[in-house]
Amino acid sequence: MMFPWMLLSLCFLTTCSSLRIVDLTHEQNHATIYWPGNPAYNFTILYRNGTNGGYWYESNSFATAEHGGTHVDSPAHFYQGGWRTQQIPMEKLVGKGVIVNVQAKASINHDYQVTVQDLTDWENSYGLIPDGAVVLMNSGWSDKYPDKNAVFNTTTPNDPSTFHFPGWHEDAVTWLSKNRKVNVIGVDTPSTDYGQSTTFPTHVVLGKNNIIGVENVGFLDSIPESGSTIFVAVVKLSDGSGGPARVFAMVDDNQCTSGSDAHFCHVNLHVLVSISLIVGLLTL
Amino acid sequence: MMFPWMLLSLCFLTTCSSLRIVDLTHEQNHATIYWPGNPAYNFTILYRNGTNGGYWYESNSFATAEHGGTHVDSPAHFYQGGWRTQQIPMEKLVGKGVIVNVQAKASINHDYQVTVQDLTDWENSYGLIPDGAVVLMNSGWSDKYPDKNAVFNTTTPNDPSTFHFPGWHEDAVTWLSKNRKVNVIGVDTPSTDYGQSTTFPTHVVLGKNNIIGVENVGFLDSIPESGSTIFVAVVKLSDGSGGPARVFAMVDDNQCTSGSDAHFCHVNLHVLVSISLIVGLLTL
Repeated sequence: MMFPWMLLSLCFLTTCSSLRIVDLTHEQNHATIYWPGNPAYNFTILYRNGTNGGYWYESNSFATAEHGGTHVDSPAHFYQGGWRTQQIPMEKLVGKGVIVNVQAKASINHDYQVTVQDLTDWENSYGLIPDGAVVLMNSGWSDKYPDKNAVFNTTTPNDPSTFHFPGWHEDAVTWLSKNRKVNVIGVDTPSTDYGQSTTFPTHVVLGKNNIIGVENVGFLDSIPESGSTIFVAVVKLSDGSGGPARVFAMVDDNQCTSGSDAHFCHVNLHVLVSISLIVGLLTL
Repeated sequence: MMFPWMLLSLCFLTTCSSLRIVDLTHEQNHATIYWPGNPAYNFTILYRNGTNGGYWYESNSFATAEHGGTHVDSPAHFYQGGWRTQQIPMEKLVGKGVIVNVQAKASINHDYQVTVQDLTDWENSYGLIPDGAVVLMNSGWSDKYPDKNAVFNTTTPNDPSTFHFPGWHEDAVTWLSKNRKVNVIGVDTPSTDYGQSTTFPTHVVLGKNNIIGVENVGFLDSIPESGSTIFVAVVKLSDGSGGPARVFAMVDDNQCTSGSDAHFCHVNLHVLVSISLIVGLLTL
């Protein structure tokens, strides 16, 4: 009589460990997208050939502006005295993934700015935005990368006044900074402020609150809107205002088949196990 | 009668989630240690001042050889046709941490090379090296970084023939490549081959087997010899033979108080919960 319930409980326990790693990073190379005015990317082959020692040898150097491709904006980028790159505590670069999907809206309005309502909608579906979250806009822009004209959505990619791509409204990031405790706010476009911004208020709010920015994040359709853990592993650049980052997610597909976040799933799991045990014992 | 056992079970379940993030990366700057012959590091301030828009703005560019500071050796570094940096699957850059502590031996013999016996000793303490492991030598060398003469252990840091620092013996990495399935092999010194090597056999074995190398890893005394998960988040450099990496660990101090790895702990947890339930039910 007792064994079916025990097996059920153990079944719940053992399905907690099927992790999938998803790379959310665009490659860094000559096609990497920089904001106009940045120096060009350079990649120099130092050696690529056989050696007298009998082994093959390859080695290169590269030069890049901090703010190109998939990269971090450190708080110092737009706020004097904010953390520079090496000052960001490692634990601030990791958090539960909160993916705010605005693809439908952004496909109609290329100047779309994520609103507080978008965040409320997310919470209505998945529960409260967890402490330390990595909150990313998914506008569908990743598919355009690295086509510069498509990403900046202009025929004059050297003129920012012609840019039309979505980003965060300052009211939404201000609301997050006041009402939730998030580690990172980011976008799949070249700027956390939308393309038509001239004063970059979102960047300033992020900097002022020591919230880490991340831009040109890729492939967000590959992960669920809730239930992942996202890592924003920026190069540890002394005195940097940002830097190239390896951004990736860990997704436990077994653990969270509904949209709720991992902690919530664990709680659910405990509740389920408890109910199984209680019912099992009561029916003995 | 049933409740104490249920509470005991739930207690085991709920102690599984206290994670600590540990940064294992040295800062990248003018003190970064490169092998002799590499071009110098460059950091250029593009802008660092107030703006007409009323906001503060900082932006920089930098130039670096791939193989300096805490960095990855891609398989292509010493093996023709091996993965270049952007070709390394993301899941190969993550794994259970296996820290092989040879500090006592390396403090006596600065030319120490990690042996198969050191790996066997680790397994005798902690169990089989898990599939996908990140296996790192901890020689105590991290404390010397970034003092170039101390790290290369010479008064002539431009002359590799005078270098004396520990690394991996080729027999140990060959044994790992044949008998275990590891993702990454690394060191807290400037080279996976020891300082006196001239033909770099360890590098070649790593490349030939598409095992990722990582060098100048820092602060390994901050994590347990078993029970962590280590991330080797290299810049996603097209055609790279390596690149700067953000290396960090997640440690669940509650989960693994003994030395065994996380999977083993989970199994133990299940066994404990099962025993609790069985004993609880039998004593009803």
